[in-house]
Amino acid sequence: MKICRFTLKSDPDCAPRLGVVIDDAVRDVTAITELLPAQLWPLPFGDQLIAALPVLFARLAALAELAKPIDLQAVSLLSPVANPAKFVCGAGNWKHHGAPFGMMGFMGKAVTSLAGPGEGVQLRWPDRDTLYEPELAMIIGRECSNVSAADALDYVAGYACAFDMTLKPEREDWAFCKSFDSYGVLGPWLVTADELADPSALGYQFHVNGELRGERTFADLTGNPAQMIAFASTAMTLYPGDIVLSGAADVAPVAVGDVMTLNIPGIGTMETTVSISSQARSASQLAS
Amino acid sequence: MKICRFTLKSDPDCAPRLGVVIDDAVRDVTAITELLPAQLWPLPFGDQLIAALPVLFARLAALAELAKPIDLQAVSLLSPVANPAKFVCGAGNWKHHGAPFGMMGFMGKAVTSLAGPGEGVQLRWPDRDTLYEPELAMIIGRECSNVSAADALDYVAGYACAFDMTLKPEREDWAFCKSFDSYGVLGPWLVTADELADPSALGYQFHVNGELRGERTFADLTGNPAQMIAFASTAMTLYPGDIVLSGAADVAPVAVGDVMTLNIPGIGTMETTVSISSQARSASQLAS
Repeated sequence: MKICRFTLKSDPDCAPRLGVVIDDAVRDVTAITELLPAQLWPLPFGDQLIAALPVLFARLAALAELAKPIDLQAVSLLSPVANPAKFVCGAGNWKHHGAPFGMMGFMGKAVTSLAGPGEGVQLRWPDRDTLYEPELAMIIGRECSNVSAADALDYVAGYACAFDMTLKPEREDWAFCKSFDSYGVLGPWLVTADELADPSALGYQFHVNGELRGERTFADLTGNPAQMIAFASTAMTLYPGDIVLSGAADVAPVAVGDVMTLNIPGIGTMETTVSISSQARSASQLAS
Repeated sequence: MKICRFTLKSDPDCAPRLGVVIDDAVRDVTAITELLPAQLWPLPFGDQLIAALPVLFARLAALAELAKPIDLQAVSLLSPVANPAKFVCGAGNWKHHGAPFGMMGFMGKAVTSLAGPGEGVQLRWPDRDTLYEPELAMIIGRECSNVSAADALDYVAGYACAFDMTLKPEREDWAFCKSFDSYGVLGPWLVTADELADPSALGYQFHVNGELRGERTFADLTGNPAQMIAFASTAMTLYPGDIVLSGAADVAPVAVGDVMTLNIPGIGTMETTVSISSQARSASQLAS
């Protein structure tokens, strides 16, 4: 099942909707979220919808069948995960990087950088280079710690495309450079794990303005998705909705107006646009 | 006002309580949290209690006066902030580091590393060194973006002590090393900003097992708290409950059994103990 979150282009200020994507249309299944109980402070870590997916799955499918199709062109896609507790970003994780798995560990990224493809990448420091990093995202479905690689994929709710956008570091730390607002683009939807038995069998094509910039198979990851989750879980408890990113092989600066397109067969095609944020600061403003 | 979260040592599995600390006693003000509305998925970023503090302040004070004092020795202190959206960790931010402010930017830390002093630091990779980093924590009270340094402290809910524990990196990225479960210790309570007009006027004494390991004044920070918040907010929207850490001047490995004590006059004394996690993995287990 392909689960998305969206607003309507005809009503951009509407409350975010929950959808199931069938063919080229979105079925509005927002009603299902009424089954999620209201939460009281203090809140537990993790995304409540992702945690409930196993229980809601059949009802989501039934509701989707009944719902009127909305053309994908009529919606603006948000991040399919609303409330991740953390990003875990693979680093140096491609065989051509030449480092054994685990040697680079992982980087971090603030969850407040989360964005959907319809929102786009909005540059806050436009005088500095921002790098694209097209990646595979694994979304954790159940809390786990010290899970084995053999069992790790049982804890995955689903998969998505990601742009792990990164300010090109000069002296700054990677995690800061990855945490700018809108630098964590996830989408176009979450494909539930039952549809993808072996994520390592997937690959991607990445285009900028229609020009091919990268074509990879995830068999060339040094640590495969199961190993990544197992390794991260030796250090950190993983929660439903946590987003584990494969790490990037294709990295280069973007320009304002660029349209980035990431296609992962079995997941789908995520397209997003680079613009300047209304909150942007020039280099001279930053230095003052 | 000193706001804490706690459990009772006589009932360690009780639901976390909210307290106000007066002299050496905690007043249980958990009843006030019934005024916080239940939240529906998807949740907004930020800590609901911290966001509501201005509205609740007078009622908290009144309730605290009426409540029966509980000796501080009878409680186990949790992180005074329950639901931060992110940590923003200062880096290279002391004058003796020799770098101009902003040159190192900030590091990140997963919020799932959050712990209270009563929970302690629990080592998951005990065969590797873990470093202490005693720091000042600024807790954001109101959403802000591109706030000026002149206005930044108006957006602070309060201050706390922090241990920004960090696995000593070999090849791993800093953000990973800072994100281990229990490596973000915050406490002993949050002192509301009305009690601390100028955090730069504060300083700290840091002891391990009674031995002085560091004594600093925050006047020696390269970027003071207001400048740090202003600078971070040029890149990232800050939300209520977000935790901005000053950056560390005193850094060295801890040993199992170490008792770390951080005293910041005007805030208080935070004491926590280093132990081995029940989830710990040996170096040979990690390599397998």
